[in-house]
Amino acid sequence: MTQNIYDNEEFFQGYSRLRRSVEGLDGAPEWPALRVLLPDLRGCNVLDLGCGFGWFCRWARQQGAARVLGIDVSEKMLARARAASEDGAITYTRLDMEHLELPPASFDVVYSSLALHYVENLRGLMAQAHRTLIPGGRLVFSVEHPIFSATVWSEWLLDPAARKLWPLDRYLDEGPRSTDWLAKGVIKQHRTLATYINMLIREGFVISHIEEWGPTEEQITAEPSWADERHRPPFLLVAAVRR
Amino acid sequence: MTQNIYDNEEFFQGYSRLRRSVEGLDGAPEWPALRVLLPDLRGCNVLDLGCGFGWFCRWARQQGAARVLGIDVSEKMLARARAASEDGAITYTRLDMEHLELPPASFDVVYSSLALHYVENLRGLMAQAHRTLIPGGRLVFSVEHPIFSATVWSEWLLDPAARKLWPLDRYLDEGPRSTDWLAKGVIKQHRTLATYINMLIREGFVISHIEEWGPTEEQITAEPSWADERHRPPFLLVAAVRR
Repeated sequence: MTQNIYDNEEFFQGYSRLRRSVEGLDGAPEWPALRVLLPDLRGCNVLDLGCGFGWFCRWARQQGAARVLGIDVSEKMLARARAASEDGAITYTRLDMEHLELPPASFDVVYSSLALHYVENLRGLMAQAHRTLIPGGRLVFSVEHPIFSATVWSEWLLDPAARKLWPLDRYLDEGPRSTDWLAKGVIKQHRTLATYINMLIREGFVISHIEEWGPTEEQITAEPSWADERHRPPFLLVAAVRR
Repeated sequence: MTQNIYDNEEFFQGYSRLRRSVEGLDGAPEWPALRVLLPDLRGCNVLDLGCGFGWFCRWARQQGAARVLGIDVSEKMLARARAASEDGAITYTRLDMEHLELPPASFDVVYSSLALHYVENLRGLMAQAHRTLIPGGRLVFSVEHPIFSATVWSEWLLDPAARKLWPLDRYLDEGPRSTDWLAKGVIKQHRTLATYINMLIREGFVISHIEEWGPTEEQITAEPSWADERHRPPFLLVAAVRR
């Protein structure tokens, strides 16, 4: 089972105070870029892998999705997601993404936001995502960018001209990375960008777009502290079509 | 026109002494990984973009390619390529990759090794590669990895435990980077990995494999100084199919 860090009280409290937890999708700077990768959801069956507080599930219904299934391993998050909506077309289910078994050809869209980098058996999960999508169905997800997840000692460095540099560390050595983010010893699975892409291709997806997300000029003007994120993208966004 | 640095005498002399220039393909550590991305070349028409000394063109013929066209902007390199072989099925032509016009549906394979990161109008060149490939034809190339090309100030840094870190610099800010490699002021075009991938998709290719090349365990045993390359891949290898 994936480390269920979201049910750690310290982590959960910290996570609950993040802007993306308080404000929802519009509080996540990468959301506009992720949103444009999604197809029209009207009438779609949508699966959200790692649904958290359910912000995306509720949004998908507002867009006209017929049914939405949100799965997550965190009881605390699911409890809050269930409390936030009485929409009978949304189902929240507690499942471990390491050992999912999904029904064949049942969804038009599989979505995941910043959850897959916690999953050890990602290849198995992507095989399940392929199986549960209809032919032509879409997979759209975000993860921590491999340039970001490679590095544990995550302080900026300065060059001789005092410009910031990102200390990239063991990029090609994949596997668990333990970091102290909101709580001590949060385990994420570092994978290279090539591993994500080649895994999807092998499982029968066609890559349609990838995005190494950084803030736009407008976002930096509104939030100057984000300028550093242009040195190294914090998020990787991927859109693929099930063959 | 792309900066023709290979005809700079200092650069050319330095380049001529590199192991990959003296020993050919087997002197390039990434060659085994690039080679496996190539299809069977028997009977194929093959185009090499930036053929240099012609090592790959001659190898393609040994593999049974029917005809090989090698193009390059460097007169010095083409002169040496021509002198190395009298094979009438290989043609070497001096052309600027910024303004190529290639005949439609004329090649089975388009290949390029460590040349495309010098090209400013890469989208135009990829459109030409698509146009000149037959449907189902293959594009296989290597470039400097964006993690490598982003950084100009290319000294390793040490973390508090004295482990090496790669100073990643302005990864998301694309454009020319001037570096001093073999000669002063060598201009390379830094692009993100996403830009390479999305450009190919937009031009009508299907991505079949990408590789962020680093040395294997065996290569590190044979050449211990290469171990550092696992911190940040020096080369990006891409294989795609023309739709």
